[in-house]
Amino acid sequence: MCELLGMSANVPTDICFSFTGLMQRGGRTGPHRDGWGIAFYEGRGCRTFHDPRPSAESEVARFIHSYPLKSCIVVSHIRQATHGRVCLENTHPFTRELWGRHWCFAHNGKLPGVKLRPLRRFRPVGTTDSEHAFCWMLDRLADRFDRPPATRALRVEIARLARDLATLGTFNLLLSDARDLYCHCSTTLCWLTRRAPFGVAHLIDTDLAIDFKQETTPDDVVTIIATRPLTPGEAWHHMAPGELRIFRLGEAVESAGIRGYGAPDHAGGLP
Amino acid sequence: MCELLGMSANVPTDICFSFTGLMQRGGRTGPHRDGWGIAFYEGRGCRTFHDPRPSAESEVARFIHSYPLKSCIVVSHIRQATHGRVCLENTHPFTRELWGRHWCFAHNGKLPGVKLRPLRRFRPVGTTDSEHAFCWMLDRLADRFDRPPATRALRVEIARLARDLATLGTFNLLLSDARDLYCHCSTTLCWLTRRAPFGVAHLIDTDLAIDFKQETTPDDVVTIIATRPLTPGEAWHHMAPGELRIFRLGEAVESAGIRGYGAPDHAGGLP
Repeated sequence: MCELLGMSANVPTDICFSFTGLMQRGGRTGPHRDGWGIAFYEGRGCRTFHDPRPSAESEVARFIHSYPLKSCIVVSHIRQATHGRVCLENTHPFTRELWGRHWCFAHNGKLPGVKLRPLRRFRPVGTTDSEHAFCWMLDRLADRFDRPPATRALRVEIARLARDLATLGTFNLLLSDARDLYCHCSTTLCWLTRRAPFGVAHLIDTDLAIDFKQETTPDDVVTIIATRPLTPGEAWHHMAPGELRIFRLGEAVESAGIRGYGAPDHAGGLP
Repeated sequence: MCELLGMSANVPTDICFSFTGLMQRGGRTGPHRDGWGIAFYEGRGCRTFHDPRPSAESEVARFIHSYPLKSCIVVSHIRQATHGRVCLENTHPFTRELWGRHWCFAHNGKLPGVKLRPLRRFRPVGTTDSEHAFCWMLDRLADRFDRPPATRALRVEIARLARDLATLGTFNLLLSDARDLYCHCSTTLCWLTRRAPFGVAHLIDTDLAIDFKQETTPDDVVTIIATRPLTPGEAWHHMAPGELRIFRLGEAVESAGIRGYGAPDHAGGLP
């Protein structure tokens, strides 16, 4: 299994604190030694950094730690390979362009049989089942919508595709189109929103604390999504299997009627 | 105008020496202050680094300088904006996936009217004419070939598309599909192949010398492509307007019959 880390914020925010915790799990406090990657959106643009080496020993990770990039959406992943060899092209997050938007995808889990699903326009560069699933999702979106659909129609369709993929196996997902951050939980994913009044947080994985009051303004809203809580003593919400959450600008998006949104028992009326 | 830097090598090679020279032109010895980017292929994978800030002042550039990534194909670009504002999404090289390969594109010049050419599958994220031209090339390739064509058919088609775009304006180009490095000259582009016996080279733009004998084995073949020579006293070949060169594993590819290949007066028999 791998570990995911995502962020959605209403102002460009650096993710160094949470990233530091995650990176420890790549070979130090966790077994995820098979590479890592991170994508930072800056407006419509997107920067990605990948390294097939363990994050706890990575020069690129040290650079990112020392050079805080600020972003409103971050998608990150550390890998413990289950499918596909350890190499750059098998390192999440994967990116593609659709409708003139950069899409980023990171996945934790296995999707047996996903490679039997035919692809047309988007093709994997590497050999992971995750990248195949990503290409399949974008193929379906491109087939269904010639041009960017209305926000709500897109959210409903992505929820449907995520539910469909989750029937194959384990599909803990972070996905973004530079606007929304989609989070789907099959087995384990949790989130935490920080807003005023901000306090002090400590990392579980290493001896580091931060006083967010010193780093923020009262209007900042920052949501962190992670496979496992990164800090003790904060109100992490554990997502339920089958749950989808969508965040924009740090806030959970209302989505009455999107089936599978929120806890599965809140399932709405869509077929 | 911008400056281009490319490399094609038969063994993973670091481009730090040439990159150091190029980066000086981004705000120090040259006027190209509007960002820079570099793509390194590693097998089928591709890492890109972009920074909308001047390369001579860039933390990311300093990191790359201190952490030599080795690659067989590199595409790099420093920008002096002529079209499109200075931001991450307007920073070359641009990347897209086609047929399960990462494509990289960097361009120096202007292509008035290129945005009138309709696009279908590939769409620009930013607002440069360069990214539009790249999307148009990939659209044409995807239309023409459902699946990856034979190497020669692909080279002929890319030569044709490059000639077509060059009719619109200035089209100095570096393009790669992870296998070949395509170099098209409209106004200025030059190349240099280093092979045994290796010697000492000095940069024009800063006080740095390197003894390639210490850094190479006798079988290494490394071609550098640049807008202007980076070193004095080496045998840089200045390409002619309309000339296309294709490099693979450091060597120029034979291409009898590809029109526009080599100097224009070598134009072959294709329509």
